[in-house]
Amino acid sequence: MSSVPGAEATVEAANAAYYAAFEARDLDAMAEVWERSDRVAVTHPGWPTLHGWPRVAGSWDAIFANTAFIQFVLTDEAVHVSGTTAWVTCDENILQAGGSREGGEDLAELQGGLVAATNVFVFDDGRWRMVLHHGSPVAPGESESDAHGEDAS
Amino acid sequence: MSSVPGAEATVEAANAAYYAAFEARDLDAMAEVWERSDRVAVTHPGWPTLHGWPRVAGSWDAIFANTAFIQFVLTDEAVHVSGTTAWVTCDENILQAGGSREGGEDLAELQGGLVAATNVFVFDDGRWRMVLHHGSPVAPGESESDAHGEDAS
Repeated sequence: MSSVPGAEATVEAANAAYYAAFEARDLDAMAEVWERSDRVAVTHPGWPTLHGWPRVAGSWDAIFANTAFIQFVLTDEAVHVSGTTAWVTCDENILQAGGSREGGEDLAELQGGLVAATNVFVFDDGRWRMVLHHGSPVAPGESESDAHGEDAS
Repeated sequence: MSSVPGAEATVEAANAAYYAAFEARDLDAMAEVWERSDRVAVTHPGWPTLHGWPRVAGSWDAIFANTAFIQFVLTDEAVHVSGTTAWVTCDENILQAGGSREGGEDLAELQGGLVAATNVFVFDDGRWRMVLHHGSPVAPGESESDAHGEDAS
């Protein structure tokens, strides 16, 4: 199978555009990142999976409306390309504050958190589009050497 | 791009084989499901992402050793194929009990839980191999209409 020229770099750029849109809380920019189709899906931390662009977009609108400030520092980013599909895993080191877009930012309310993320992209019409984002909370104090079951509780 | 003949059905079978290996707590069967390479990754609920087959395999060994019984009922399964890559989203409705493989099953300890899962497969040498599993706990009482931020806390 032919691969996309310079794929890793362009996937990494698409991944960065996703986080830039999230930090800017810009729904138009977020819509540019995604493939606006029925097959897209998003799983926000603690949420059930939402399917299809209308529900995915609705979740972004709701999250942006309830986020006064959010900043991502990505670590452990790994990009893998297989043909015209790519998946990225990374750790989202998040600093955020609640409140509305219109309200003032209350820096006293800043919270940190760690989310493990999987982002899937498909190359179409000359560019990579996100088709899936899955973020899950990493329990405080968890290290890779701990052993736990596949338990939701 | 040429697609894999009958792809959706064979991806669904590969996905089912993953859960069968998990229910059987069979490391050999689980190894058959996965691509045993450096690019594979697993994110168990609440865990950080583990990279590469040795660490992924180690996590299965630890989980199987601490799981006396586990049963999955999959709902809302969606299979998407793009060339020779496929991704599956599904809800894992889990019934499980702790304890060791060697110890007896204590049915009084059965716990339920809901995990949102993303599974990625790559077609190679005539079959689909899992390259990524990401499972995340769905908070009790969460519905798709709730609005929450991308917060790990």
